[in-house]
Amino acid sequence: MSIVLYDLAGGDPDLRFSPRCWRTKLALAHKGLAAETIPWRFREAALLPQPNQSRVPLVSDGGRVVCDSWAIAAYPEDTYPDRPSLFRGEGGRAHARFLNEWAETVLLPHILPMIVLDLFNAVDDADKPYFRQNREARLGMTLESAQEGRQSRLPAFHTMLAPVRATLASQPWLGGGEPSYADHIITAAFMWSHCVSLFPLLPVDGPIADSWRRSLSLYGGLAATAVRA
Amino acid sequence: MSIVLYDLAGGDPDLRFSPRCWRTKLALAHKGLAAETIPWRFREAALLPQPNQSRVPLVSDGGRVVCDSWAIAAYPEDTYPDRPSLFRGEGGRAHARFLNEWAETVLLPHILPMIVLDLFNAVDDADKPYFRQNREARLGMTLESAQEGRQSRLPAFHTMLAPVRATLASQPWLGGGEPSYADHIITAAFMWSHCVSLFPLLPVDGPIADSWRRSLSLYGGLAATAVRA
Repeated sequence: MSIVLYDLAGGDPDLRFSPRCWRTKLALAHKGLAAETIPWRFREAALLPQPNQSRVPLVSDGGRVVCDSWAIAAYPEDTYPDRPSLFRGEGGRAHARFLNEWAETVLLPHILPMIVLDLFNAVDDADKPYFRQNREARLGMTLESAQEGRQSRLPAFHTMLAPVRATLASQPWLGGGEPSYADHIITAAFMWSHCVSLFPLLPVDGPIADSWRRSLSLYGGLAATAVRA
Repeated sequence: MSIVLYDLAGGDPDLRFSPRCWRTKLALAHKGLAAETIPWRFREAALLPQPNQSRVPLVSDGGRVVCDSWAIAAYPEDTYPDRPSLFRGEGGRAHARFLNEWAETVLLPHILPMIVLDLFNAVDDADKPYFRQNREARLGMTLESAQEGRQSRLPAFHTMLAPVRATLASQPWLGGGEPSYADHIITAAFMWSHCVSLFPLLPVDGPIADSWRRSLSLYGGLAATAVRA
């Protein structure tokens, strides 16, 4: 029985843009684990298996339920140790946590206001009232105001990416000679924008652009073939 | 023959405050490698063994010269693999690089202006003209202007530390259950301030303060017993 992943979907059920769900999809593919994805919307907390945190990603593997993207990455690493490693050892796992927290506290909060109106347009109509209210409270302004003038924020965004750029200038992947979960965290953040927006968030050249292009083609083009709004 | 480390010194030759040299001192102690440290000043590039990059840290181990703090960390890890690991595996090494680059591009540049006049006061008199000219050019202002109003920058500084704080809220060390080179990078950055300044840069409580206190007592109190200006 394959693993089941509850995956945030937009108005188009094939539009899957959640950065935390993308971490999970890339992690499962990295482990060579087949996953059936179930489209899920913000209002469908009651449809999730128990126990849950009212949000996705959520993975069910033979009846075992795992929530939270970090726990979901650790789960297949520990459960299927004979498959390709996501972390390449205990030090790799511990240090990936820092990168995960950097994405949570720096990278995703920088991206959100630049694509939040595009996200609003992509979510299911029935999710729109929740999405607008929740994200406007988080951002302290309307979705329209948050996204306005985003072009002028790109230089600061690219500066913020300096540690990613410098690392990828020294080694092919954040994981070293091969991709690791750290790379998937970054790819997943950019997939968030890629799936819902035409805004050119990413640097067009340099080591981040190179890594992004290589990431798209991993695992049979999992990210490259994703549906876009 | 013990390893020789050229270590930036202040007017007091026992005052050793360089964050990159501290990375190296903590890394060598972590590996259980005895090191003789030689006090070095900015104007003494000609005194360094060849080949060098006109700066420290520089390590000489039985005649082999290694420059650059990252290369110096990799060197004992590869040369003395039977000693305690700095990276805990290849994934740990690769992911530590990101943390290293985060320190280089975010953490140290945030600290510098808050302690730069204290640093100026600590460096050797003969180094002061070079230090003032070089750092004022880097900061685009006088040392006095850079440091002025630093108290008001502390909230932003603590916000910037969010990924460190979140990681240390999840695990005892950035290295996981035990300290790794990632922890030493952070400790070394704070030692820069600790050795030359009374400015209370660090959070006084929470996971970063806890980790800092534990770091001070590692390796026989190597950091705790450091000379302060």
